[in-house]
Amino acid sequence: MYNNAKEEFYDIAIRESSDLIDKIREHPFNVELMNNTLDYEKFKFYLQQDFLYVTDCTRALLIIAAKANDIEIMDKLTYVAVGTFATRNYYREHFADCDLSDNHRKSKSCSAFTDFFMRVAYHDSIAEGLAASYPCFCIYQIVIRHIVESGIAPNNRYQKWIDFFNTEMADNMIDDVTKIINRLYEKYSNDERKNMLEFFRNGLELELAFWDEMYYSNTLQNVSTANC
Amino acid sequence: MYNNAKEEFYDIAIRESSDLIDKIREHPFNVELMNNTLDYEKFKFYLQQDFLYVTDCTRALLIIAAKANDIEIMDKLTYVAVGTFATRNYYREHFADCDLSDNHRKSKSCSAFTDFFMRVAYHDSIAEGLAASYPCFCIYQIVIRHIVESGIAPNNRYQKWIDFFNTEMADNMIDDVTKIINRLYEKYSNDERKNMLEFFRNGLELELAFWDEMYYSNTLQNVSTANC
Amino acid sequence: MYNNAKEEFYDIAIRESSDLIDKIREHPFNVELMNNTLDYEKFKFYLQQDFLYVTDCTRALLIIAAKANDIEIMDKLTYVAVGTFATRNYYREHFADCDLSDNHRKSKSCSAFTDFFMRVAYHDSIAEGLAASYPCFCIYQIVIRHIVESGIAPNNRYQKWIDFFNTEMADNMIDDVTKIINRLYEKYSNDERKNMLEFFRNGLELELAFWDEMYYSNTLQNVSTANC
Amino acid sequence: MYNNAKEEFYDIAIRESSDLIDKIREHPFNVELMNNTLDYEKFKFYLQQDFLYVTDCTRALLIIAAKANDIEIMDKLTYVAVGTFATRNYYREHFADCDLSDNHRKSKSCSAFTDFFMRVAYHDSIAEGLAASYPCFCIYQIVIRHIVESGIAPNNRYQKWIDFFNTEMADNMIDDVTKIINRLYEKYSNDERKNMLEFFRNGLELELAFWDEMYYSNTLQNVSTANC
Repeated sequence: MYNNAKEEFYDIAIRESSDLIDKIREHPFNVELMNNTLDYEKFKFYLQQDFLYVTDCTRALLIIAAKANDIEIMDKLTYVAVGTFATRNYYREHFADCDLSDNHRKSKSCSAFTDFFMRVAYHDSIAEGLAASYPCFCIYQIVIRHIVESGIAPNNRYQKWIDFFNTEMADNMIDDVTKIINRLYEKYSNDERKNMLEFFRNGLELELAFWDEMYYSNTLQNVSTANC
Repeated sequence: MYNNAKEEFYDIAIRESSDLIDKIREHPFNVELMNNTLDYEKFKFYLQQDFLYVTDCTRALLIIAAKANDIEIMDKLTYVAVGTFATRNYYREHFADCDLSDNHRKSKSCSAFTDFFMRVAYHDSIAEGLAASYPCFCIYQIVIRHIVESGIAPNNRYQKWIDFFNTEMADNMIDDVTKIINRLYEKYSNDERKNMLEFFRNGLELELAFWDEMYYSNTLQNVSTANC
Repeated sequence: MYNNAKEEFYDIAIRESSDLIDKIREHPFNVELMNNTLDYEKFKFYLQQDFLYVTDCTRALLIIAAKANDIEIMDKLTYVAVGTFATRNYYREHFADCDLSDNHRKSKSCSAFTDFFMRVAYHDSIAEGLAASYPCFCIYQIVIRHIVESGIAPNNRYQKWIDFFNTEMADNMIDDVTKIINRLYEKYSNDERKNMLEFFRNGLELELAFWDEMYYSNTLQNVSTANC
Repeated sequence: MYNNAKEEFYDIAIRESSDLIDKIREHPFNVELMNNTLDYEKFKFYLQQDFLYVTDCTRALLIIAAKANDIEIMDKLTYVAVGTFATRNYYREHFADCDLSDNHRKSKSCSAFTDFFMRVAYHDSIAEGLAASYPCFCIYQIVIRHIVESGIAPNNRYQKWIDFFNTEMADNMIDDVTKIINRLYEKYSNDERKNMLEFFRNGLELELAFWDEMYYSNTLQNVSTANC
């Protein structure tokens, strides 16, 4: 199955993990965000954790970029890293009431996900490293498309969050990552292809666990007690 | 507090995390193992996961050994890595009925813990890397001492597991790691000392979560469903 | 000596390596470049090798940026990496006749220097990694200032090369790196400070050997034979 | 050419670099060592540098072992690392008059070689990392076989050095590395195969440069001046 050079990584990965993708797309966090019914405390918790998460995602991309011997891939991934890091400034500008800072402690699911892709970025090949981080990119594209197509509630307080990911620039950046990962998948050996698909799925599971924690851990207070 | 060069890492770390250490020492998994009342399925699940965990612990030690510019530390940590890896053979020899293999999937808590210390081993200094892995060493010494002092049930089916950690060789190896970490703590700057204590505590929390998962996830079947 | 927190890394490092800095400043390659008497073949060889060198320097900075737990340092070094990489485009645009490409083989001195700072970037702390790469920055600032102050020959065919480094932007970027390295030096332990100064000096020696090879290996032809 | 899965890495690598291997085998350092005519100061310089070199070779192997996801390869390479490091004790025991210590400064060619394979160990795949370090193993096997077959001068003062490498244990250890590298070559993609062969050749060139420096840099005094 993994030998079929004609089918691209994206298509195989998305098909094999369609169960997880459905769960994330239909996650109450995302549905309520779209409907403007999401508890602002849950969003605040998500944003604080995502703020920390974005830093590690940038780190992983910088490492993968540095390790890429293909100069074009190195160059492109560096720009993706810079673009990813810029999320922090946008968040701070548009959600000043969310108490965003690097002093918050990472939640359990945030640590589990970031430690996972950081380990793979350092430990494995750039193809495997990118596959472990790839859920951070493709799932946002999928979720935002779904939200936009389904229709956003008017005067949605989360509009600024949706807007950030719903731009041609964000879309193009994710497409660039997709092109790179498809290209790497084509070139690599069967063992590495298998790992790429497995790491992508592991990453998606941790992404889902992240949304679960953000939604089901009732308040910031409770969660931070649970972690201490 | 972190400035007091006369108090050693071990003493500070253990004191600051005494709440977690008490929880691990009194964990039903360990109490029932000592009393020979532990459900064998729980033990089996633990052993299968520990078998995988030991490999990553060895990896982290090899990386830290390689990064140590102090030749004596490099040499000693390499031997600790070799000794850690040898756990696998002992497990396989004495618990042949536990279906030990590298084909099992890592459980959530096992992944969270191993990804954590692997990330720190690659990403941070050797002092920080060792602090993140150190719970794997000192907590076993503490738990085994507690079990032996409290009295092991006669004809305990877990005697062979206790025996492995209750040897002078195992004790000396852990003491060697303690000496190294105390020495590093003394030499490093305040920022790194603070990180060492924080990473040690994070590691202990993940160690506790590991025992929780091994004990409270009722059967192998259920857990493996929960992970898929 | 290394304990004096009031004297900054830059001042100590430059003073302790003033012999090497004098040699580089007065190197026939740089003197003849300033006087417009430099053999164009030597310049071409230099530019081809520098083109390759810049890529590894970018890589080292990306790794150091990724490893920096201080978010501001991570952010700034990423921009320095992007700026360093941009040298390649400038070179290609203004020296189209120099046959710049990633297909050239690295010369001995280019490999020795880049392997050195890449090893330190991966193996040691970010302070040590930055110190090993720092000659790439400060020596250009020193050489260019010297050239500009001494007076450039009119209609100098190397004007475009000088112009690139003689801008406020380039100057500010190097000053940013200097500020970061001074800050790290202040915070680190004595052992690491000692290493920082040693790695800086090692780097400078390799930088000098680089200019030596560019100047004294008569033609591209000869050098490339010598390497095969 | 690289596609031929039936021909093994060892055979291709040795054939493609036979020019370099001949030069090393017939190097005056090795010929005179065999004939017992080698200047003891040259040998002493070599041994001091090799003492430092062996430490980095151990480091590279520890990193590659840690990065190997194949447990058997991880285990075997750890033992090779331990065996490599043991060279230091043998040297110290049998050549007590050679002033062996970690306080000597690495010579230019020693730094160039060790920085090269350390960089590859961290930066590239385990197959590429092992290929960069492989000259350290196979060339000693080749040189020692040649010395033994050609006949060693009686009462050779270098007999203890020859003896160390001329044992079944040393031979088996090198054969183990050869089996691993052949196996990795078979599994990897064409791009990585090409890199493996290139890194092996680069390593051999640096090995030859190492012997050149040890032989042609007349005395320890001179060399150490040249480096400062």
